[in-house]
Amino acid sequence: MQMSILMLVAGMAVSAGEPGRAGDPIEQVVLAVHGGTGMEKALVTPELDKALRADLTKALQAGYAALQAKEATSLDGVVASIRVLEDSPLFNAGRGAVFTRDGKNELDASIMEGATKRAGAVAGVTNVKNPISAARAVMDQSPHVLLIGRGAEVFAAEKGLEIVDPKYFWTERRWQDLQKALAEETKKEGHGTVGAVAVDANGVLAAGTSTGGMTKKRSGRVGDSPIIGAGTYADNGGCAISATGHGEYFIRFSVAHDINALVAYKGLSVSGAANEVIHDKLKPAGGEGGVIVLDKQGRLALSYNSEGLYRGYVTKDGKIVVHLYDD
Amino acid sequence: MQMSILMLVAGMAVSAGEPGRAGDPIEQVVLAVHGGTGMEKALVTPELDKALRADLTKALQAGYAALQAKEATSLDGVVASIRVLEDSPLFNAGRGAVFTRDGKNELDASIMEGATKRAGAVAGVTNVKNPISAARAVMDQSPHVLLIGRGAEVFAAEKGLEIVDPKYFWTERRWQDLQKALAEETKKEGHGTVGAVAVDANGVLAAGTSTGGMTKKRSGRVGDSPIIGAGTYADNGGCAISATGHGEYFIRFSVAHDINALVAYKGLSVSGAANEVIHDKLKPAGGEGGVIVLDKQGRLALSYNSEGLYRGYVTKDGKIVVHLYDD
Repeated sequence: MQMSILMLVAGMAVSAGEPGRAGDPIEQVVLAVHGGTGMEKALVTPELDKALRADLTKALQAGYAALQAKEATSLDGVVASIRVLEDSPLFNAGRGAVFTRDGKNELDASIMEGATKRAGAVAGVTNVKNPISAARAVMDQSPHVLLIGRGAEVFAAEKGLEIVDPKYFWTERRWQDLQKALAEETKKEGHGTVGAVAVDANGVLAAGTSTGGMTKKRSGRVGDSPIIGAGTYADNGGCAISATGHGEYFIRFSVAHDINALVAYKGLSVSGAANEVIHDKLKPAGGEGGVIVLDKQGRLALSYNSEGLYRGYVTKDGKIVVHLYDD
Repeated sequence: MQMSILMLVAGMAVSAGEPGRAGDPIEQVVLAVHGGTGMEKALVTPELDKALRADLTKALQAGYAALQAKEATSLDGVVASIRVLEDSPLFNAGRGAVFTRDGKNELDASIMEGATKRAGAVAGVTNVKNPISAARAVMDQSPHVLLIGRGAEVFAAEKGLEIVDPKYFWTERRWQDLQKALAEETKKEGHGTVGAVAVDANGVLAAGTSTGGMTKKRSGRVGDSPIIGAGTYADNGGCAISATGHGEYFIRFSVAHDINALVAYKGLSVSGAANEVIHDKLKPAGGEGGVIVLDKQGRLALSYNSEGLYRGYVTKDGKIVVHLYDD
């Protein structure tokens, strides 16, 4: 009897320390971002490490600044943060998007607000500089939630968003990723999707996600990022979630909405809900990835079953914290 | 005190009899279909009424026959039923799809299996005769869940699915619907999306949904039908759901996954969960539509907050029941 108690205690200790499992929620958070599960840690040079942390910090600063503006909403914070990550070539979203197997860039994004459950998303766009702003335009300026392909591009242009030559999304690094993937030299793939969650002074939650998809994806393949309920969800009765990972699993498990349901219906904390979905449901099924989850009390969970999750948050008083792996 | 008890009882009585609210689950069901919320009841001629019932019956017969085959699965039943409804010009899916404002037909479909949570979907296809079969091909023959637009069409052709000239989807009735919508003569719109849920001899659930979207929709607009978690979900730990209605609301409320979560996490019956989402959440928000919900014990709920829900089911012993409105 004594032995089994000891074993249980040992098991719990291991579990609590499991890499990527969220501990007690981080308190007093107003905004958090992620930049995907990233690449193999061993391949990250000191220079790249520094650059990644710098851009995540810049995204948090931009989001925090947006939240300080008069009448600012959590949506403003989410968009400001994600635009910085989209404009960086280091993340798989916007400028740094990966290539399809046909050598194109097809981008997806979504956004949602938790008080009214308004939402917007675009998928398969090739010439919109900041897909997160296109998602917000769908939410704010159309009766729709999801626009895809050419129709989404026409809409974005009509609304005055910045349209770029598709070549804008060509980066040497992602092109080499595609060549390696086509040669099947890489088996393991990082997911560089970006996202943000925020809560504003009125206690309104928002979440957003933006991605270039998977290297060597079939043209037309859409993952979880633009899918409300899979890659993004926000519900003031629960929490705000942005996900990154192997999108097919995140769709099948309705990851974002499932975390919300566990908070809303089972009363789990953001950490409990995030860990249950990411570690106890997705991991056994083979679904790699992670989530950032924030509730309207400013409690944040960061949970991932991958080697890393590029992530950071800013607290009410402006303190910024950034992590890439289990550091 | 006595008065308030009487009022409560009266309130409950009214609530139980509310049109479209599911009563106690219907038992011993193996397969159910819907053909959307339909048109204004006053506009349904006796001939159309008869034709609608005939095609719903044919869909149920096809699904039931598929389920009787050796080693048949619930997926086979769902696909067989939905193909009949897609081939009918009477429903807004496949042949009878409505037109975009540009005078095109853009079709969406999704399918999911509840034991493994495998899923497949297509959106924005213009030349695939049976989108539900394309969704199943994505599930069975690709590593992906959702393919959109031209990429989905190329995939469907590669897999040997029947490709048709887009003119196949041109029907006089839908063309007139578009002309009226363009002239803003119709304010109220029916939603003719089709769907099916089934359970097989092994107790495995499946759900599928197929649609032509909304009349006069912007090209590229995608509703809930191809969105796993919104229009379709199947989870053997909960239930199988197919939805129809104003798709934007169904996405924002993650309707299918939310019903599943209420069954799985709050222990509600299929009827309780369906009514809570359709009547208590969607209706106050302005979201019109309905769902069919089946659990693996063969208990079915049919719930809608619209004037009608074209619907039917078949029981284990082959009994077929079809309804259009509150009849």
